[in-house]
Amino acid sequence: MLTIVACSAERKLDEAVTKERLPDLLKAPGTTVWVDLSGPIGDEAGFLTSTFHVHPLAIEDCEARRHHPKIDDYGSHLFILSHGVHPESSAREFKSRQLSAFLGPNFLVTCHRDASRSIQATLEGVRRNPRLMAEGPGMVLYRVLDYQVDLYLPLMETLQKRIDEIEKECLAASTSAILQDVFDLRKALVRLRRFSGHQREILLRLSRREFPLIDDKTAVYLRDVFDHLVRITDLADSYRELVAGALEAHLSIVSNRTNEIMRVLTVITTLFIPLTFIVGIYGMNFDMPEFHWRYGHLFVYGLMAAVAAGMYFVFRRRGIFNRR
Amino acid sequence: MLTIVACSAERKLDEAVTKERLPDLLKAPGTTVWVDLSGPIGDEAGFLTSTFHVHPLAIEDCEARRHHPKIDDYGSHLFILSHGVHPESSAREFKSRQLSAFLGPNFLVTCHRDASRSIQATLEGVRRNPRLMAEGPGMVLYRVLDYQVDLYLPLMETLQKRIDEIEKECLAASTSAILQDVFDLRKALVRLRRFSGHQREILLRLSRREFPLIDDKTAVYLRDVFDHLVRITDLADSYRELVAGALEAHLSIVSNRTNEIMRVLTVITTLFIPLTFIVGIYGMNFDMPEFHWRYGHLFVYGLMAAVAAGMYFVFRRRGIFNRR
Amino acid sequence: MLTIVACSAERKLDEAVTKERLPDLLKAPGTTVWVDLSGPIGDEAGFLTSTFHVHPLAIEDCEARRHHPKIDDYGSHLFILSHGVHPESSAREFKSRQLSAFLGPNFLVTCHRDASRSIQATLEGVRRNPRLMAEGPGMVLYRVLDYQVDLYLPLMETLQKRIDEIEKECLAASTSAILQDVFDLRKALVRLRRFSGHQREILLRLSRREFPLIDDKTAVYLRDVFDHLVRITDLADSYRELVAGALEAHLSIVSNRTNEIMRVLTVITTLFIPLTFIVGIYGMNFDMPEFHWRYGHLFVYGLMAAVAAGMYFVFRRRGIFNRR
Amino acid sequence: MLTIVACSAERKLDEAVTKERLPDLLKAPGTTVWVDLSGPIGDEAGFLTSTFHVHPLAIEDCEARRHHPKIDDYGSHLFILSHGVHPESSAREFKSRQLSAFLGPNFLVTCHRDASRSIQATLEGVRRNPRLMAEGPGMVLYRVLDYQVDLYLPLMETLQKRIDEIEKECLAASTSAILQDVFDLRKALVRLRRFSGHQREILLRLSRREFPLIDDKTAVYLRDVFDHLVRITDLADSYRELVAGALEAHLSIVSNRTNEIMRVLTVITTLFIPLTFIVGIYGMNFDMPEFHWRYGHLFVYGLMAAVAAGMYFVFRRRGIFNRR
Amino acid sequence: MLTIVACSAERKLDEAVTKERLPDLLKAPGTTVWVDLSGPIGDEAGFLTSTFHVHPLAIEDCEARRHHPKIDDYGSHLFILSHGVHPESSAREFKSRQLSAFLGPNFLVTCHRDASRSIQATLEGVRRNPRLMAEGPGMVLYRVLDYQVDLYLPLMETLQKRIDEIEKECLAASTSAILQDVFDLRKALVRLRRFSGHQREILLRLSRREFPLIDDKTAVYLRDVFDHLVRITDLADSYRELVAGALEAHLSIVSNRTNEIMRVLTVITTLFIPLTFIVGIYGMNFDMPEFHWRYGHLFVYGLMAAVAAGMYFVFRRRGIFNRR
Repeated sequence: MLTIVACSAERKLDEAVTKERLPDLLKAPGTTVWVDLSGPIGDEAGFLTSTFHVHPLAIEDCEARRHHPKIDDYGSHLFILSHGVHPESSAREFKSRQLSAFLGPNFLVTCHRDASRSIQATLEGVRRNPRLMAEGPGMVLYRVLDYQVDLYLPLMETLQKRIDEIEKECLAASTSAILQDVFDLRKALVRLRRFSGHQREILLRLSRREFPLIDDKTAVYLRDVFDHLVRITDLADSYRELVAGALEAHLSIVSNRTNEIMRVLTVITTLFIPLTFIVGIYGMNFDMPEFHWRYGHLFVYGLMAAVAAGMYFVFRRRGIFNRR
Repeated sequence: MLTIVACSAERKLDEAVTKERLPDLLKAPGTTVWVDLSGPIGDEAGFLTSTFHVHPLAIEDCEARRHHPKIDDYGSHLFILSHGVHPESSAREFKSRQLSAFLGPNFLVTCHRDASRSIQATLEGVRRNPRLMAEGPGMVLYRVLDYQVDLYLPLMETLQKRIDEIEKECLAASTSAILQDVFDLRKALVRLRRFSGHQREILLRLSRREFPLIDDKTAVYLRDVFDHLVRITDLADSYRELVAGALEAHLSIVSNRTNEIMRVLTVITTLFIPLTFIVGIYGMNFDMPEFHWRYGHLFVYGLMAAVAAGMYFVFRRRGIFNRR
Repeated sequence: MLTIVACSAERKLDEAVTKERLPDLLKAPGTTVWVDLSGPIGDEAGFLTSTFHVHPLAIEDCEARRHHPKIDDYGSHLFILSHGVHPESSAREFKSRQLSAFLGPNFLVTCHRDASRSIQATLEGVRRNPRLMAEGPGMVLYRVLDYQVDLYLPLMETLQKRIDEIEKECLAASTSAILQDVFDLRKALVRLRRFSGHQREILLRLSRREFPLIDDKTAVYLRDVFDHLVRITDLADSYRELVAGALEAHLSIVSNRTNEIMRVLTVITTLFIPLTFIVGIYGMNFDMPEFHWRYGHLFVYGLMAAVAAGMYFVFRRRGIFNRR
Repeated sequence: MLTIVACSAERKLDEAVTKERLPDLLKAPGTTVWVDLSGPIGDEAGFLTSTFHVHPLAIEDCEARRHHPKIDDYGSHLFILSHGVHPESSAREFKSRQLSAFLGPNFLVTCHRDASRSIQATLEGVRRNPRLMAEGPGMVLYRVLDYQVDLYLPLMETLQKRIDEIEKECLAASTSAILQDVFDLRKALVRLRRFSGHQREILLRLSRREFPLIDDKTAVYLRDVFDHLVRITDLADSYRELVAGALEAHLSIVSNRTNEIMRVLTVITTLFIPLTFIVGIYGMNFDMPEFHWRYGHLFVYGLMAAVAAGMYFVFRRRGIFNRR
Repeated sequence: MLTIVACSAERKLDEAVTKERLPDLLKAPGTTVWVDLSGPIGDEAGFLTSTFHVHPLAIEDCEARRHHPKIDDYGSHLFILSHGVHPESSAREFKSRQLSAFLGPNFLVTCHRDASRSIQATLEGVRRNPRLMAEGPGMVLYRVLDYQVDLYLPLMETLQKRIDEIEKECLAASTSAILQDVFDLRKALVRLRRFSGHQREILLRLSRREFPLIDDKTAVYLRDVFDHLVRITDLADSYRELVAGALEAHLSIVSNRTNEIMRVLTVITTLFIPLTFIVGIYGMNFDMPEFHWRYGHLFVYGLMAAVAAGMYFVFRRRGIFNRR
């Protein structure tokens, strides 16, 4: 589906532009044209090439599914491939959605396979206030990228909450149930860090006036989007460190628990084993002299008490009882 | 709450400036104006924009809550967003408080939502000695940033003490109680490192004469603040390394303790189990030949002593007793 | 085996070129010559040196087996040593195959010891469409490198699948069988990362117009190959992180399992040991008073029930039963 | 305590300079002045400022106790804050001692709170050979810094020996006694690395001719000090890696020991437990048929031998006995 | 021992040069002089300084034993300190041997304390083919450095084999015997990486035309040595990663083995302990009613079978038997 919006130098918005009128509009001074292409490019590739003279390699990149964010300067136009947060992204899986943009001196072409929330929001903003578009195609691109970055924020909050939960669980339980979750979260964070890092690099290049197609005024705004992305990559790094720390703490806790349990087992087992051995001796069917003593069984009781006390003192001395 | 202070070329301080007189003062040569805005910007946004021509994006950043330290050059003014230590910061949680500043050729505007100790201290300093302000708005900014960094120092000492404690506890006890504390401390250190790192970068850029609004004399002073921040980030890095080292040592200690306990359990259990088995044999209700021997029970005692001695020698040989 | 292809300025392909005609062809304006040498260089070294004046060090590198990807600028020609994926590469072992190329102003010489899939594919493409070759030797090189990178993709998918499997196994079983596989996979990933990283660096240098022999148009295409390699090295890094994460999770799971088993052992052992001791006492062949009580054995049952209940309450209090 | 040494252009040393004569000496061409201030600056601050026009911020840094090595260019003079090894430094704790220096075109001012071995040695060298000082204040500074670095070497050797010991102990014993030492050593190494790293950076800046006050000849000598510091930081990094490696090996060894002990416990326990159960059965006071068999007890012996052999074969099959 | 070789512009080699004739030879145009000094410098220091005007600091570095590879530009000559592989280097210890070289416009001075295989080989090459030396002292230096790097290769192969062995042992056995070896290997790799890294940096600087004394032709050759060193440092990094991975796998395997053994112990112990308790009960010398039942002992057998079956089902349910 093709949406074409043009904005004249007099800040009048025109949404009834046909493909045929585009070449004339692109020649009119002060006019900004925005073409949004939703769904697969397919047959429109020819139209893009002939009208905007975009590079065939950029078209190819548009259509490919697996690409990281990138920016290419083809002289007459910039090609920007950017990744937004997919609405289904969660703390278990980070999904991204690809948005391609061709930025020329007076045109912006955006392509996306699925519905794009940032495009939708920018379009509505332009309709409400055509002045936004009269500032040139760079400012329209800024708005799209700004919306895209804003959509990272709810995900960051979801992640923050999940990490708080996982942290508590890691420090509390010694079960394995949490470990699958930790693993998934780490995977999502690796992916998020990777995509936001590339995205940040693109915005750094856009905002530091590397490309003549971006004027100084627009660069100031793109710098702001860059700052947001710095914060997101920063958070992603912190999150990874926190999750790794939680897992380490978990391992320590399990280790301590095992140690604690072993101490209980050792104390009780080693205390009773010699006693059980003694009662075993007097359970033998020999005719032992102690059986004929008057207080034979009391003697054995005393012997056992002495052995238990002896063990206790030895243990105490070797520090088995205290936790150090 | 709005505080306006002006300092004429004759080093005379004027605290009774109204908003209306500001445009005239800003035109007077040699006059330095400092406007401090405490609490939410809200309605004052218009006043800032019209009087100081600050960029709307900077106003937006002022109002946002979640931003890392940053610096933006808008040509006619610099926008600096800096983070000071929140008074409630502790070894359990690092909290920061945001301070925004607009630095122009002859004005400084500072904005902060909550009371700011650095602003308060600078204001008092200026009142006592108006000469400080006559040196220009850059030197006022220097003083604010310098106070802000000074307030990091008590926190660093609190952290140092806490780390010493944690280190001792980690090397002493094998309990899990310490692990939540270690985790919280690590979290605080990650956050502290992140904020102080960004802050340091800002002061590096301010002090290396990148911006024409900062003159050489002021840059020398800002370089000093930068050096303090280098020390703080350095310490934060060392602290993280120490905490990680303490945790590692803790794990080793727990592991060694478990090994020690296991050895005790193994030696005693494996020594007594064969003996208990022997006494069990002679507890069976068969009419065994040994029962009719004269020194049957002494024979069994001897048998058990022999088995125990044999076990002992085998253990000794296989090195169960020695710790290696 | 030597394959010589020449393409005249009129886009006519000539595959019947002999070694003798080459010097004349190389002098003809607009003619592009591609010489492909399959198998060991051996005697052809002299031919390469005399016809294309390639540097003897480059010839040496061609023949050596153990080299990482590299690029050398000898002024009159570039020497590129690149590594493609060996068809036998798997998730157990990453194997690469070396391809050397000499790029001059109007010639390309490619050398490879074994059959090369990328050379084969490029040759067929050129035969189908001679125009591809008329664009100059740089574009032929681009096509070879592009095919080489495309052949990384099936390997990346194999690795992705293997990692998913290993992840599942690591989180499921506590056996050692998986560990050899994990180790092999890590080894393959280290190797893959190393080679693709060097390859990426070469393409960065080729595409950023560092060498006058690469014109602007070709550089744009080589930039595209670079972007693909960025994705591959990125994936290789993610894969290594995922495998490391899976191994860590595996260790945690084993640790938790051991803890769980220990708790069962401890609870049952410490519950029954005192009871067994009590029954042992009354198995002694002394004439104990309890034997003459009417409900002596019921008293002992009661005693044992009391001891068991006591132990239970102590355990419950010390938290042995609950998993925390 | 103030020591003032002046060296005229004729290489004559004059140690009887009073503060009053200094301004004249500083104006005399070819004269080099060295002022050494031992102990707290206190009242001498005014003298330094008026005579050498040093920056007040540098004076402040001199007096502060907690600073990392740094270098500041104040135009008319350089301020260098460097850290030497404290004589009490050991493998348990790295202590440093601060030395400040102001380097002007014809003067050097050194300040240190405690006695300084490098200052002492340089002073004696200058007294023996006044020519050293006639080469300018930069060469005097070089000698001071060179002595300072030389004093790192005995510490490096102490550390090397300690690491060799710790390595042996880590690989030998499974006790916790070593862990406190390892922890202290790591702490000392972190600190050493931090200080020597900053020091190295200062010498890099001094030696790469960044400051006009350092002439080419002196820079060559300072480069030599830089090379020594590269070696020291290099060693510090290696040492940290070795200690970390020793700790890892220690953990593995403890883990293996625990595994070994567990195997012994398991084999003996599981072998005897069924046998003890069997003898328990025939210890019951029922009138069992086996009691009336002629070779009843031999039958039970055989039964037990069969069970033991069965267990042995099962264990052997499941690989409990062998270490793999 | 001093070896002096001179090569005239006519490519005639002269090995009978005395110290006295050197100054004249150095003035002859087109003559290349190579002086090799084997053993301690000692008295020759004066000769080097007077004849070649080398810097005293460089002489000092020559004589010092503990230096990392470095390069210093003294204007009239370069000083290169390089480390070759000591013939005694093994997988247990990496040893290096220091070689110093002074490179001037028409001379090369090499110094080494012990016999040097690279110097020997270069000398023989020059004798066989004097043309090699006629290309200038830079090419002689190239040959020495190239031989030095070639001697790394047998060591790399030794390491490769040792790593393969260690990997197998780590994945197979759970003994501590391997750990000392792993530790030594890691130490050797750390050292190898450090030296080859510094060496690589020197060759990068030599080959990127930073020094006017190295002409373009020689730089191309030195670039080749640099490429070899890239491979060696690369391999050293991979090796370290592999060893670390093998150690991690080893720990996992030991952990799994311990878990396995614990499960066997737990299952058998907890199965028999209640049964032993039951037989203990009926071993008590009370006159219990069951003794008078006709099939009393069969009842007890049934009871025990029921308890064992119950335990079995509980265990099965809680997943003690299966490995997950």
